[in-house]
Amino acid sequence: MRQDGRLSNGLRDIKITRNFLKTAEGSALIEMGRTKVICSASIEDKVPQFLKDMEKGWVTAEYSMLPRSTPTRIIRESTSGKIGGRTHEIQRLIGRTMRSVMDLDAIGKRTIWLDCDVIQADGGTRAASITGAFVALTDAVKFAMGNRMIEKNPIKDYVAAVSVGIVNGEPVLDLTYPEDSTAEVDMNIVMTGSGKFIEIQGTAETMPFDKDRLRRLLELAEEGIREIITIQKSVLEG
Amino acid sequence: MRQDGRLSNGLRDIKITRNFLKTAEGSALIEMGRTKVICSASIEDKVPQFLKDMEKGWVTAEYSMLPRSTPTRIIRESTSGKIGGRTHEIQRLIGRTMRSVMDLDAIGKRTIWLDCDVIQADGGTRAASITGAFVALTDAVKFAMGNRMIEKNPIKDYVAAVSVGIVNGEPVLDLTYPEDSTAEVDMNIVMTGSGKFIEIQGTAETMPFDKDRLRRLLELAEEGIREIITIQKSVLEG
Amino acid sequence: MRQDGRLSNGLRDIKITRNFLKTAEGSALIEMGRTKVICSASIEDKVPQFLKDMEKGWVTAEYSMLPRSTPTRIIRESTSGKIGGRTHEIQRLIGRTMRSVMDLDAIGKRTIWLDCDVIQADGGTRAASITGAFVALTDAVKFAMGNRMIEKNPIKDYVAAVSVGIVNGEPVLDLTYPEDSTAEVDMNIVMTGSGKFIEIQGTAETMPFDKDRLRRLLELAEEGIREIITIQKSVLEG
Amino acid sequence: MRQDGRLSNGLRDIKITRNFLKTAEGSALIEMGRTKVICSASIEDKVPQFLKDMEKGWVTAEYSMLPRSTPTRIIRESTSGKIGGRTHEIQRLIGRTMRSVMDLDAIGKRTIWLDCDVIQADGGTRAASITGAFVALTDAVKFAMGNRMIEKNPIKDYVAAVSVGIVNGEPVLDLTYPEDSTAEVDMNIVMTGSGKFIEIQGTAETMPFDKDRLRRLLELAEEGIREIITIQKSVLEG
Amino acid sequence: MRQDGRLSNGLRDIKITRNFLKTAEGSALIEMGRTKVICSASIEDKVPQFLKDMEKGWVTAEYSMLPRSTPTRIIRESTSGKIGGRTHEIQRLIGRTMRSVMDLDAIGKRTIWLDCDVIQADGGTRAASITGAFVALTDAVKFAMGNRMIEKNPIKDYVAAVSVGIVNGEPVLDLTYPEDSTAEVDMNIVMTGSGKFIEIQGTAETMPFDKDRLRRLLELAEEGIREIITIQKSVLEG
Amino acid sequence: MRQDGRLSNGLRDIKITRNFLKTAEGSALIEMGRTKVICSASIEDKVPQFLKDMEKGWVTAEYSMLPRSTPTRIIRESTSGKIGGRTHEIQRLIGRTMRSVMDLDAIGKRTIWLDCDVIQADGGTRAASITGAFVALTDAVKFAMGNRMIEKNPIKDYVAAVSVGIVNGEPVLDLTYPEDSTAEVDMNIVMTGSGKFIEIQGTAETMPFDKDRLRRLLELAEEGIREIITIQKSVLEG
Repeated sequence: MRQDGRLSNGLRDIKITRNFLKTAEGSALIEMGRTKVICSASIEDKVPQFLKDMEKGWVTAEYSMLPRSTPTRIIRESTSGKIGGRTHEIQRLIGRTMRSVMDLDAIGKRTIWLDCDVIQADGGTRAASITGAFVALTDAVKFAMGNRMIEKNPIKDYVAAVSVGIVNGEPVLDLTYPEDSTAEVDMNIVMTGSGKFIEIQGTAETMPFDKDRLRRLLELAEEGIREIITIQKSVLEG
Repeated sequence: MRQDGRLSNGLRDIKITRNFLKTAEGSALIEMGRTKVICSASIEDKVPQFLKDMEKGWVTAEYSMLPRSTPTRIIRESTSGKIGGRTHEIQRLIGRTMRSVMDLDAIGKRTIWLDCDVIQADGGTRAASITGAFVALTDAVKFAMGNRMIEKNPIKDYVAAVSVGIVNGEPVLDLTYPEDSTAEVDMNIVMTGSGKFIEIQGTAETMPFDKDRLRRLLELAEEGIREIITIQKSVLEG
Repeated sequence: MRQDGRLSNGLRDIKITRNFLKTAEGSALIEMGRTKVICSASIEDKVPQFLKDMEKGWVTAEYSMLPRSTPTRIIRESTSGKIGGRTHEIQRLIGRTMRSVMDLDAIGKRTIWLDCDVIQADGGTRAASITGAFVALTDAVKFAMGNRMIEKNPIKDYVAAVSVGIVNGEPVLDLTYPEDSTAEVDMNIVMTGSGKFIEIQGTAETMPFDKDRLRRLLELAEEGIREIITIQKSVLEG
Repeated sequence: MRQDGRLSNGLRDIKITRNFLKTAEGSALIEMGRTKVICSASIEDKVPQFLKDMEKGWVTAEYSMLPRSTPTRIIRESTSGKIGGRTHEIQRLIGRTMRSVMDLDAIGKRTIWLDCDVIQADGGTRAASITGAFVALTDAVKFAMGNRMIEKNPIKDYVAAVSVGIVNGEPVLDLTYPEDSTAEVDMNIVMTGSGKFIEIQGTAETMPFDKDRLRRLLELAEEGIREIITIQKSVLEG
Repeated sequence: MRQDGRLSNGLRDIKITRNFLKTAEGSALIEMGRTKVICSASIEDKVPQFLKDMEKGWVTAEYSMLPRSTPTRIIRESTSGKIGGRTHEIQRLIGRTMRSVMDLDAIGKRTIWLDCDVIQADGGTRAASITGAFVALTDAVKFAMGNRMIEKNPIKDYVAAVSVGIVNGEPVLDLTYPEDSTAEVDMNIVMTGSGKFIEIQGTAETMPFDKDRLRRLLELAEEGIREIITIQKSVLEG
Repeated sequence: MRQDGRLSNGLRDIKITRNFLKTAEGSALIEMGRTKVICSASIEDKVPQFLKDMEKGWVTAEYSMLPRSTPTRIIRESTSGKIGGRTHEIQRLIGRTMRSVMDLDAIGKRTIWLDCDVIQADGGTRAASITGAFVALTDAVKFAMGNRMIEKNPIKDYVAAVSVGIVNGEPVLDLTYPEDSTAEVDMNIVMTGSGKFIEIQGTAETMPFDKDRLRRLLELAEEGIREIITIQKSVLEG
């Protein structure tokens, strides 16, 4: 059993608060255990330079952590003057994920910005950001359809993410920060509502892993994501 | 009467949630109407270069707005790569204010960082940041005294801030964003629990003002701050 | 009596040299005691992005100190790669002040840049910058009217600034650097020729202050600014 | 059959030139078809700040593309002033990979820098960088052991990487740039000489993929990496 | 005699490989002894802002050194975030040189970028860059004429460069890095095929020099450049 | 005859005001015709990193132009966030020049900073900066010797600079900005009091030049510098 009493295939408590910000087209506060992320979706009436001659839109993401989201204060990237590699990796992942379930032709010459700001971090912030950003995105799309900015629903499927890993030799689901920082293998999986993979990012932190371990980690992730998407559905459709 | 029904000397509803973050030595969520700011206080065991040969500490602040704290998304300062003038002004004000009620000798060779992150903005974010930061600071000091890092309470007085201004020719207290953006005069006042001034920052946005108007604005601010400090006290001592 | 023999309400010697630079539309060298600032005004035929759809102009300012304007060399902001908070504060103040006495509709789609470069610093550089920038601005406007770029005089009133403060318990006018660095309260006041306030920025550096002290500081500033504007007038109209 | 005549499980021609640079402790030019990368390994007698109190070393990597390594010139990151997200991702991957086969205690308080500079790019630059960097690293370690800087061989296993993907519905090995830019799924795999996974990074660019497809891609990668490691061995041991 | 056996007026072995990169309109690898530079020429269909209203083109250059082109690793300018003074000086020199032998009207509204990337450095990298860049430029121009982008050959003359200097009191041609770092005088000369000067940049590193010494250095350079241009011709016309 | 009536070998009026700044160890205002530069010398009690283990000092320079030193306002390098190539070139030249006439061992572990700030520019700012910086440097050295910081005079010779060029086919001395901007050849020469060369930087802007022209330009420069050094002497020794 794990330090917080969960079984190896147990998720932490998940709570998603829709429309957390009154100022945005779509927004959500997602809480996975002690991990808390504010996700917002903003619609902008222009597209990046590389799409300027095409009749389609774009979806992109930015990710940041409050300086005191962690037990030790971290320096703001605005202060240090550069965006770190980890931040870049995560925001590219969030953007790519959202685009993979969107019909970009259907949103016209617009950009949807997804901002994921971690208020409190206890592991799994990138997975929580993806899961929460999908809710904010869905609400922004509803807003745009309600305002007749968009005619056809561009969202093709649900999408959510979860972390899995090998901790003390045991494959486990949804790692807390203490688990993550001692994990031998650390993996983030993004899957659709129809059970297909969008992203697999697995890293052997201290110990290379074989195919059996990989298979078990993918099973745990699949189960976990199915459960998370059920929660998304109840929040969005309930 | 004002758009939201308040009298000219009326404050918006204020709610302060202590220890909002589990990760910080001190923290608070302050809500003034729709304006919401997360304030945290972090204790670091070193001092800036210019104090390195002295037996005293430092208190400094950083301020930021989430990109979607406003009705139109603002570009992150980490993305633009530079911290704007307004941000600089506000974080210098917060730091100066906190230092003015602290005995810096009493905290030893330590820096206390105050982070004020605006989640939702509807006017008065700098005043709310000061009021909330004081609560976070107080809790961090309590934490440090509890851990015997600090022996003597370095906090000499309460401190809070409020905005006042002239809107449609009328002096009013605690401006919302729509009021602020049409104000003829805009002023931020910081005062102590003993009713003395720490900062006065007044600007004639569209119309120079005379001494009578100034006197009335100071009265409104004084009343407002007295009320806010009462709330701080009930939260911290209640 | 003060270290340099002045009474508490005494200004230092002020000298303003009009058209100090042959290269600019308007310029002035202002000397207040040992503080010396070169101010220039430049007219550019475009406006910032946020005004692009409006039929009006803009006035903005930049402020800088030569590295050896001070007894200890300061690092250039071009070398450090970032503009400090103090610089931002001052240049925003100068810009705001000049705009407050201008009819921006009357200058057309143009930007007037005010550059204030401190050659030698002995306290009061922001006040001197404002007082000198107004002279440079006035000459640039005359130049533009002479060239029929502007038809109607956009300048609505005179404007000047001065510092006041409490030093050794005594309210004084126009602080030198040694006075400023030991002041308990430090205040910068900007007023118009008609005696109204444009800006009040007061800070309790070491000791909160009450309403009586505030009243006295405002009186000193008012007297001082009246005297400074008399000098501006004799320079510009003499 | 593929555009360049290869079977779906065919690698491009690989050529590794050891000690390509006379100036470095270890270096290699790796060519995979038209993709060419210069890899060098540099030993520095200090460690990053976060290791300063530990008796171990560090391995880190930097990756860059020459501006004209691609058919359209790309702007230098030194000119644009910021390192892009893709670069960050790749260099973090290279560093992590090398560390995973190293005993960092055995190199003492030293940092080994791996620089991968792409001269000509035709797909698979990150995989080629990893494969080439391992050769440069091995030679730098030999150099250090020859000079008695290091006593025990810190390299625990071989490591190499390859790209796989789904192109026109077919899983293929070692994608060229034209294949990569039209791939439905794109995956990079890093494996050790003993056949275990170090990294799996798979992305559904246009079409989510199921477990069968994933299994086939992993098989292709495994075969490919086995072949590449045979080449590394013949170069290093031959 | 010099350390590597050359006479004072001897060049190192020079080898120029045309079309070194398959990806560029023109490119060359130039080797002068152990100094190796990849030069490429790229044609872009736009011109810098300051030429936007003119019917002519531009030629510009960028120069960089691989981190391990030198015996001690140098930090990438993309990592340090700023381009050093030496880099600026060299790339301005290369650009100016190429423009001086070009008819910029004849290339239309286009920019030709010359990228010089030093792979291995042993003195004389700026001279080698100029000599190699001219070859890349010539091939890019041929490409453009072949594609009827340009009608008339814009290249007016050959151009090459060499270093000369005073080492151990003796004027010598084509300095290696060990010679350069102990030289009393260091000079770079750029000349045309018709034997005229384009640039003379001479610096007394440790000892001012008189006119006689200057005359001798210019003679050495002239001889050397004549020889280098003969090699360029055989490569380009052979 | 030239536009301002000078002969081809005529200098503009030169005026050097010693101790122009009260705040610096050494300073000078140099005026060459309409070109005006403030030069200051600052002594700092530390040396750059690369000298940290040696018993010698360093001399370095920074150069900047006020935004309105020119007929069209130029953007501050602190605002654009990067120091341009021209600035880098000039400040490296000034530093190198001053070091070439200094005995760096004699100043101990100190850095002397030379700041050259152009107030008004009409050609020849780099030459004027060198000539003026030498005066500021000399006064700073006197100050340091007077305070017994330095025992032995580290200055070995006078040094000054001048521009020469070919304008309308004619070699001329000390170019104004209008001359410089139409010059076919542009050259800056730095020479010592004993008539030897420190730097020669000549560029064919529009037309390569032969040896005869070079000889004539060097003669003009030699004459001019002799005259300038006479002025330096009368100012410093008079």
